[in-house]
Formats: sequence, structure tokens, C-alpha cells
Amino acid sequence: MTRVAILGATGYTALELIKILLRHPEAEIVAVTSRQEGNPHIAMIHPSLNARLDLTLENLTPAEVAGRAECVFSCLPHGASASVIPHLLDAGCRVVDFSADYRLQSPEVFQQWYGEKHADPERLGKVVYGLPELFRAQISGSTLVANPGCYPTCAILALAPLLKKKLIDPKDIIIDSKSGVSGAGRTVKLTTHFPECNESVSAYNVGRHRHQPEIERVLSLVADTGVEVIFTPHLIPMDRGILTTTYSRPTGQLTEESLLQALREFYAEEPFVRVVDHLPGTKDTVDTNFCDITGRIVRGRVLTISCLDNLVKGASGAAVQNFNLMYGYPETTAL
Amino acid sequence: MTRVAILGATGYTALELIKILLRHPEAEIVAVTSRQEGNPHIAMIHPSLNARLDLTLENLTPAEVAGRAECVFSCLPHGASASVIPHLLDAGCRVVDFSADYRLQSPEVFQQWYGEKHADPERLGKVVYGLPELFRAQISGSTLVANPGCYPTCAILALAPLLKKKLIDPKDIIIDSKSGVSGAGRTVKLTTHFPECNESVSAYNVGRHRHQPEIERVLSLVADTGVEVIFTPHLIPMDRGILTTTYSRPTGQLTEESLLQALREFYAEEPFVRVVDHLPGTKDTVDTNFCDITGRIVRGRVLTISCLDNLVKGASGAAVQNFNLMYGYPETTAL
Amino acid sequence: MTRVAILGATGYTALELIKILLRHPEAEIVAVTSRQEGNPHIAMIHPSLNARLDLTLENLTPAEVAGRAECVFSCLPHGASASVIPHLLDAGCRVVDFSADYRLQSPEVFQQWYGEKHADPERLGKVVYGLPELFRAQISGSTLVANPGCYPTCAILALAPLLKKKLIDPKDIIIDSKSGVSGAGRTVKLTTHFPECNESVSAYNVGRHRHQPEIERVLSLVADTGVEVIFTPHLIPMDRGILTTTYSRPTGQLTEESLLQALREFYAEEPFVRVVDHLPGTKDTVDTNFCDITGRIVRGRVLTISCLDNLVKGASGAAVQNFNLMYGYPETTAL
Amino acid sequence: MTRVAILGATGYTALELIKILLRHPEAEIVAVTSRQEGNPHIAMIHPSLNARLDLTLENLTPAEVAGRAECVFSCLPHGASASVIPHLLDAGCRVVDFSADYRLQSPEVFQQWYGEKHADPERLGKVVYGLPELFRAQISGSTLVANPGCYPTCAILALAPLLKKKLIDPKDIIIDSKSGVSGAGRTVKLTTHFPECNESVSAYNVGRHRHQPEIERVLSLVADTGVEVIFTPHLIPMDRGILTTTYSRPTGQLTEESLLQALREFYAEEPFVRVVDHLPGTKDTVDTNFCDITGRIVRGRVLTISCLDNLVKGASGAAVQNFNLMYGYPETTAL
Repeated sequence: MTRVAILGATGYTALELIKILLRHPEAEIVAVTSRQEGNPHIAMIHPSLNARLDLTLENLTPAEVAGRAECVFSCLPHGASASVIPHLLDAGCRVVDFSADYRLQSPEVFQQWYGEKHADPERLGKVVYGLPELFRAQISGSTLVANPGCYPTCAILALAPLLKKKLIDPKDIIIDSKSGVSGAGRTVKLTTHFPECNESVSAYNVGRHRHQPEIERVLSLVADTGVEVIFTPHLIPMDRGILTTTYSRPTGQLTEESLLQALREFYAEEPFVRVVDHLPGTKDTVDTNFCDITGRIVRGRVLTISCLDNLVKGASGAAVQNFNLMYGYPETTAL
Repeated sequence: MTRVAILGATGYTALELIKILLRHPEAEIVAVTSRQEGNPHIAMIHPSLNARLDLTLENLTPAEVAGRAECVFSCLPHGASASVIPHLLDAGCRVVDFSADYRLQSPEVFQQWYGEKHADPERLGKVVYGLPELFRAQISGSTLVANPGCYPTCAILALAPLLKKKLIDPKDIIIDSKSGVSGAGRTVKLTTHFPECNESVSAYNVGRHRHQPEIERVLSLVADTGVEVIFTPHLIPMDRGILTTTYSRPTGQLTEESLLQALREFYAEEPFVRVVDHLPGTKDTVDTNFCDITGRIVRGRVLTISCLDNLVKGASGAAVQNFNLMYGYPETTAL
Repeated sequence: MTRVAILGATGYTALELIKILLRHPEAEIVAVTSRQEGNPHIAMIHPSLNARLDLTLENLTPAEVAGRAECVFSCLPHGASASVIPHLLDAGCRVVDFSADYRLQSPEVFQQWYGEKHADPERLGKVVYGLPELFRAQISGSTLVANPGCYPTCAILALAPLLKKKLIDPKDIIIDSKSGVSGAGRTVKLTTHFPECNESVSAYNVGRHRHQPEIERVLSLVADTGVEVIFTPHLIPMDRGILTTTYSRPTGQLTEESLLQALREFYAEEPFVRVVDHLPGTKDTVDTNFCDITGRIVRGRVLTISCLDNLVKGASGAAVQNFNLMYGYPETTAL
Repeated sequence: MTRVAILGATGYTALELIKILLRHPEAEIVAVTSRQEGNPHIAMIHPSLNARLDLTLENLTPAEVAGRAECVFSCLPHGASASVIPHLLDAGCRVVDFSADYRLQSPEVFQQWYGEKHADPERLGKVVYGLPELFRAQISGSTLVANPGCYPTCAILALAPLLKKKLIDPKDIIIDSKSGVSGAGRTVKLTTHFPECNESVSAYNVGRHRHQPEIERVLSLVADTGVEVIFTPHLIPMDRGILTTTYSRPTGQLTEESLLQALREFYAEEPFVRVVDHLPGTKDTVDTNFCDITGRIVRGRVLTISCLDNLVKGASGAAVQNFNLMYGYPETTAL
């Protein structure tokens, strides 16, 4: 049994994490924190947790958190996360960080994309990226894991096998993603006000979404060469789910069969990646930790279509998968 | 041709009003105001108005408004509306007020439900309620019209014929309403944040929604006796539309046929009320100024089911219908 | 460990049931049937089950089913269910029936509402209604359980405490329900075609929905007197969830506090009923086996507002709860 | 005043067409046809038309149609349209055809993509493609106009200026489109059953959607060279709207400013194309005949993002725009 704390427990990823951990036989939630004033019961913020988790939100110092919990899931925003995590690590906690703070290779790249100095620059680049399908061995031994972004997970899982096997050109990759609104978080904004985004589709952050450098860093590691992508996210009027369509060029002859075969081989042993023949829909994966992937050849171009639940495989399910690996629990526990 | 100004032009009712007025051959929009800082082009706030209305938002005094416009549509919130309208009337403008400021019978009732002193108490109770189906004659000669609330329009149109004809008990009326989210306005709130209200239904303001006294006042006028209602609004995950189901007791024998017949007779000459045999859906009325009504007898109880577009017949369409009556244009112009 | 079969496995309740049973440590799904031609893999029908359940749909006789399974969940439509279940019972199976076939008190009432002769008339009226909150003891010893309808569960759980305690008049009860579209099943129809029912609300089957006699029968048992209700279902543009608002008359003085207290006492020991102070939304209960209930007094009338997930507490979750009771597993297992 | 008939009036494009024509001062709807049995009032099929259009559906021969109407809008499916239109033309009618029958260059291409012989092969390739922004002059003099597909309109309007001005490579174009469900028509199917497609996104017909050859044919005409595209449509859980994101390679140096400038110049005089700086959402164009377009340069690649209402500018609005041109009415009448 592992005692866990959740920092920044008012958001959607924290709520999803709590729901998963509540069915985890080896995890006990001992603290949920928030920097907001007051100490409401968690069910005041998330009514779905009524009668399921009897904790109040607390504004705890890292030392207080470390005094109670062995493992900490940080759902704090970027910046805030990196200013707390070093103290937690020093106090002996293991940490799964949901923020982008430890996902990039260097403080320079971080500053370029996030517009601020990194609070813990020396650790950057040494933290494992928490995608078990690519970095399982390192995750198992880690005290800190950078939990991947939702878009990156969906895009990387589709493209990694093709780049690893050098089947596609690493410099000509287009990633067109469609995401449900929960990906934008729980903070109210006009763009996610119901009558604004319902019954509408739009692109946003074109050419400047912060998940682009994350995708490129990880895919470059996999390809062992610099990978460049064009990444366009779109907002879709639904709660959950990401569907990603990628377009790339084959390096040689590639049939649809061999494309699907390459994907199948790569993920043959993976419990949470399903390579499918049909065109998957996000609903096939909602409330699960699965990522469904298929491939097509259209006019000599390679297409992949992948989807997942942004709050599960794209966030909290992945976090629990990492937690399971870090603590030696069966990887699929509670998932 | 009438020069019109729209006060508080950043919200959804103002946007809908602009769209209707743009196709009105006798209305020219000469000013759109906002108390926000700055003077953005209206299309910066409402991108759908690009290339359709070339005006910037201005923060104008009542005198400035009156200097430009003959008719003013006030989409200001309650309180703000009543503090401006007297000046506009004094300056010779005619006004259609979207707020609740002039809908109730007395400053006392206003203060009881809105929790603040009325800014123009003497005028209260003398302003016509802008429901042409009930008060057409008075509207025609008015300089100030209190445009009805969306829920009241839907409930009153269904119940007024039955109360007028004394077919139902005025003290045993239940009104269960379901509304799309645009009814909650354009101000961001957690309850109307997409991932909160999408895929969910809930009741709100049970027993204390401010449209209750409005419904009761108007129905009491119609019934010529005190009417009491229980009114329960529900929030539905859709942009537009209100569906209202009412439950009341017949005062005597009443068949479904005679119920429908009573409704049909009452609205025989009305251009915007459709009494139908089938069970209507809000979609039948979206983007129109129609209110669809049907009736049923279930176990000796009278049911009415009525629906409309809360932004059209429930707000801006009604306002233009009132405008047409006030200025002697054909009542259905632009509708 | 209990071997279970699912009859009629192509629908939404069957899919939900499978998902719940897959995490049940004491249930093994050994057969999934369909009367459709062919034997597709279950994942061809429900792609979300890919890599989760490796069974093909089969068209099995009752004897074949009984040869494999100890417990049978029948998701067949009414009529079809009652023609199969006697054979399953004779062969020694226990059965949870999702259809309405065994919910009513007599073949006459069944024929009146379902328009056909009952295939197994003698058993009618002797089968326990599978609502553990009311009939737990009988369910535990049963070989056949009539799993409740989704609307009835939501309405009965809200009203039963008040009728049991004689707090409300059993002859003046209005039930206004709002349901997501999955309640209408997986058979394609124009009314549930996306562009028809999306962004729209409508009432349907007013005064003649088949869940009315079911609600009345069970509430009459609870009240120990004849209960009459007016039941109006509405279709809401969302996947899942039912919210029910009831209006009734108190038999004596009743404050909001004592109303809530009565509900709380009644459900004090229940694992899946949450009596709450706030106004619940269906989203609080989606994907859970909870029913959330609150009460209000408005102008001397008693209101209850209750909600649940129609596919879980309203169908498959309840079925597993019944299964747990029938087999002596902890009641909350897998829920 | 022109007498018009609408063939195949039960679908969504016909409904939208009727709504537009009802506000057209120079069009009188004299017949609405359907090949279904019976002669229901049009409002039985489309309840929103109650009290707005008093016609019954009729199963008329081409001769009967031609006996009543001068202009015919054919909303029949492909194949059916081409078997009727020659007779209408022979009888002196002018025709706007919503089907794909006259959009492609040759019977061979038609047969390749639609899998059947063309019923009127000699006319193919000689009929003007009804996109006024590109073919206004020819439309004005035509007796038969092939009304464009919804996806093609959205993609062609974005790409045509760039191809015409030779700013992008005609052989490296990716078109990723997202469409609301009304685009799939009114015929019930499992894929458009509400609980299947709501809260989900998926790609469909990847590499084999019939709008691909249509896009290529028209863009090739514009570019005066063979254009090849990869076209991927996606189904989005909303009623209306298409958003299209295209990715292409510039032929030379191209800045974002000059890209937007090229689009602006091309459409400077167009009443229904709005070149915007911001990223448009489909909601900005819903219920209008506008197509909103913007452009971006990302990592040296050219992106366009365009959107429209698939039922208006993507179908019925375009049809009325063509009708206006054919008959010499002001092009924006009723739009």
C-alpha cells in the first residue's frame, strides 16, 4: 500500500486521477491540496466524489505533504510544479508531475515556449518522459516522472514506430489534432463558455502550441535524429477525447498492410495500445487507458489516425500506469 | 426608416437583435454601446457580424444616444437599465427594455426579488408588458415597453388562454421548464463552463427564480384573479430553446379536444403562435419567432407543452415585434 | 467465480454490463448472444471492447446457454425475454432480466401497456423487483430478478421514503423526467438521428409511457395503498443520465429540513443513494451506480430532484448489484 | 417573380432551401416533391415549416413539375437527379442540381467514384460548377448549374487564390476537414445515431471520399494544371458547419502578410467570402452564406483555415446565390 497525495486537486485531471486511485488496491489517498483559500470538502468542488472520498482540500507546504505521503501526483500548473517538486524529492517523496515542467530537454527550450525562467533548471533533461511504451525501463527506477501531455501522447504513439523503423521522413510530418474541451482545463474562459464553443469547431494556437516542442523532443529521441512537425490543435464540442490525424512521407515503398504490420509489431506486447484495422473514434477509448491507432496509405502518403481519452491515457491513466511501474505494481492495476 | 441604438451590445440577446434588425427594411442601427473600456469594432466581440455591421462599441451617455437614435433597445442588466431609461424617455426616445426593470407591478415586489431599490419606482406598474398576444393594443401606443423574460413568454403563452377562459385552477399550477445555456448569458461562470454543463442536466434556482413573480403578475392580469405557480427551471446542454411543461387542474370537464380547441381559438389570429397536435421540440422553433404549443389531458390533469427560441421569441424577436407595433410597421417585419 | 451469459449483447445496456463485469473478480463472461445472423466478434459491434473481451456473438438456444452459464443476464426486448427465461430457470440458471416482462403485477396490466399476451403469465407478480434499496432481502434468495427500468429507479428512489412515511399524498404526484438519448436504445430511428435530437428538447409518450404502471406498482407496494402518478418523459441531447423532478403535496406540516432528514434516514445505510443538500446534476452520477437525491419545499409543495446514470444505476449497475446479492458477493463489488 | 419547385424535399438541404426561399421576394415555391408514398403536408416532415409553407409533398413527373415551375432545385440523390434533369431542361425549366451528377468532368470519372453509369453522359463536363466566386459569368447565362459539394466549397475557396496565383505547389496539398452531422443527410444510420456519434470524433472515407475528385477537378481548372490533394473528412458532434485546414508548400518566399494579402485581393469584391486575421470558428458562419478564411505560415508551410455552414454556403445558400445569378436578381437576395 502506498500513501499518495494530489497537489492541485480542483482540476479535471485531478478528479480523474482520484477516480482511478479509488479503485486501486495499493494506493491510499491521504491528502488533496489547493492553493485556494479555505478548506472545503473535496466533494464541494467535485460533487461526483460525494461518499467516495472523505478529505478536505488543504493548503499544505511541501514538508507537510512529504510528512504524510510517499508518492505525490502534482497537478499544479507549470512553474508552480517545478518550484515545489525539488522540496518533495529532497524529503524522500516520489513524484509524478502532470505539468510540462520536466518534459523538455533544456531550460532554454522551456523558456522559449513557456515565457519564463525554469525554477529547477539543473534537473531538466534528466527526468524520464512518462510514456511507458517508449521508456518503461527508466520509469521503473525513477523518483520523478514527467507525465506526458495529452496531444503528445496521441501523436507520439502513432508516429514513434514509423520513425523508429525509419519508415517516414522525419522532416515532413503534419499533425492535425482534434480535442474535447476538458483539455482546456477547469478555469472559466470565454472560449470554453458553453454557448461559444458548443456547436462550433475552430483551430487554436496554430504554429505555437506548447506541445509542439514536446512532441519533437520525444520523437527525435526515438528517431535518433531531429524531427520537425507542424502541429495544429482544434477544439471540438465534446467533453473528452483526442483524435489525431498525421500525414507523412514514406522513405521507401510502403503498403497499407506493411504499415499496419509495423504498428502491430511495435505494440505487440503493449497492454494499452490497440492497433486496429478500422477507423477508430474517440468514443471507443473514452474512460479507458487505451490508445487506438490505425494507418492508411493515401496517394503515396502515410496517414495515421489515433485516439485516446485526454483525461485518462492522456493524463491521469498514464500517471497511474507510471505509478504502477515506479512501485512495482502490475502495470495495468486500476486501469 | 427608424434610427435605433442598442445599449449593452456585447451579449447574446444584442447579437440576435442585431441579426434581426439587419434584415429589417425600416430600421437602421446607428449606435451600439458598451460600458467596457475601449472601443472595439463590434465584429471583434461578435465575429459573426464581420462585414455585416460596421460600427464600433461606444460608451455613450443617454444624451448622446438620444442625439442619434429615435428608438433604443436596452440590453443592459436590471438596475442599469432603469437608471438610464428615464433620461432616454425625457429626451424623446422610445425604448424597448430587455431587462426585468419594468416588468413587475411595484417597487416592493422588485426589491423583494432583485434585492435592490428600484431606480425609477414611479414608472413601475404603468409600463406595458411586451407580449403582443396579450397586450397588443397598449404596446402600439407606448413609448416604453418591458420586453418579457424568456421563461415567462413560454409559460404565459401556454397558460393564458386556459386562465382567461377559466378552464384551470389558478392556484394549482406547476411549471417545469428546460432551457438551453444561452439563456444564462455571455458572462463566464463555472456552471456554464462547457465541461461542467455539457452532457448534464440540473435544476437551478428552485423556488426562487426571478421569473416566477413575472409569470404570476401577468397571468393574474389575464385571469383577473391571483395566480400562483411553482416554477422550476432546468439547464439543458444545448445553445438555444426553452421547452415548458405545465401541470394544472381543470375547473370542470375538459377533453383533450376541447383543450386544443381553446388554445386554437385564442391564437387563431396570431402570426407567431402555432397550436399543434403533435408534441413539439424546441428545434422546430429555433431561429424563428414562433412559440409552439400543444395540450394533453393525463389522468384528469391538464398538461401544456410549449417551446420557443429563448433568444428570438424569448427576447430579441419579441423586441422587434414590439418595435414593429410601436412604429406601425407590419408586425411580422423581419421576423 | 460465477459463469455468466449475456443475451442480446448488441445494445447499450449489454455493453455497459460487460464493462462492469470485466472488472468483477467473481464473474466470468462465457457467452454473449444475438439473434442477428452471423457470428461477429463482439468487438466488431462494440469497438470499445477490443482487447478486452474475446468472444464472438452466438445465436444460442436456452439449453446451450444453460450448458455454459450459471447466471444469465437477459438484455432481450420485452416479449422475447419471457419466452426464453422459463427454459433457463428450468435448466437451473439464475436470471437477471433487463426487460419489463416480470416487472408488473399481472398479465392483464402487462397486456394493457405492452399490447401483447404475456408468454409466461403465471410467474408474473411473483418475481422480485430488483431495487435493493426496497427489496434487498427477497433479491438475495431469488433465482429470477426483474431489473428495474431507468425512469422508475430514479422516480421510485426519490418518492419511496416519502410514501413509506406517509409524508405525501399518494394521489397527487407529478413526475417530470429528463433523459439522455442512450435510454432509447441502439436501434436507429429518426427521433434519435443526431441532427434531429441534438440541440433540441421534447416530451414524448406523454401520458402513455410504459414506465408509469411500473412506477405505480412499486410505489403502491411501498405506500401500502394505491399510488397514482402523472409521468412525463423528455428527451435531452446528451448520452446518459436521467434527472427527475417530482411535485407532490405534503400530508401535514413539512419543512425542507425534515424532508431532507426523512430522505437521509431512509437511505442512511445505502451504499448507492446519496441524499444531498445541493441541486444535483446528472453528471455527478454518470459512470457510477449512485442515485443522488435532494428535496425542496416550494409554496407548500414537496419537490424532489433525483438523478442517476440510466445505463448504470438505471440498468447494468443495478443488475450487477442484484447479481452480487443473489450470489452473496459484497453488494458493491465492481460498482 | 419566379415559380420554383423543389425535388426531394424531405432532406436537410431542401428544408434549408425552403427557409431561404420563403424570405426571397422573387421566388414562389409552387411544388415540393418526394418519391415516398403518400402525400403528407410538408410540415408533417419538417415541423418547423408549420404555418410557413402550405404545400403537400407530391410524387410528380418531370412534365408535371415543368408544367408548374420555371426553376427547379433538385435535391435528389446522385443518379436520380441525372435521370430527371434532361427532361426538365427539355421542357424549358432551368435547374440547380444539388447532386454530384454534373460536377465531374467525364462519365468515366463519375463511374469510377460513384460506381454506376451516368444517366446523361453527354452533358457531363459542359455544365458550369456553381461556385460564383470562380465561375460567376458562366452561371449567369446557364440553364443548368451543378451546385457544389459542401467540403469542396470550403476547400476550394481557401486554395483557389493560392493556386491561381501559383503561390503553392499543386501536387502537395493536404486537406483535413471537420464536418457537422447534418452533412450526412437525414437517412438514419448507426454512424449518425445520437449515442454513437455524440461525444466522439472520427475520420471516415479516408482516401476515398467522393468529394476528392470534385475538389481536384475544380482546382485544376483554376490552377490550369493538374492538382492532387489528400482529403480526409472527419465527423464532429454538432449539427452544422465545416472547418477545413489545408497544408501546402509555397512555391517561393511567402510571408503570412502576403498570404493574407493574396486572399484579400482575390476576394475583395466578393459578398460572401470574408478573409479574416483571426482563427475563425464554424459558429461565426452558421446560418449565413459566408465562408470565412484565414492563412498562416508555419515552419515554411502554408496553412489555410476556412469554414462555412454546410447547409447554407455549402448547399442551399449557394443554390439561391446561383438562382439569383441565373435570373438576374441581386446576388445577395435572401442571403
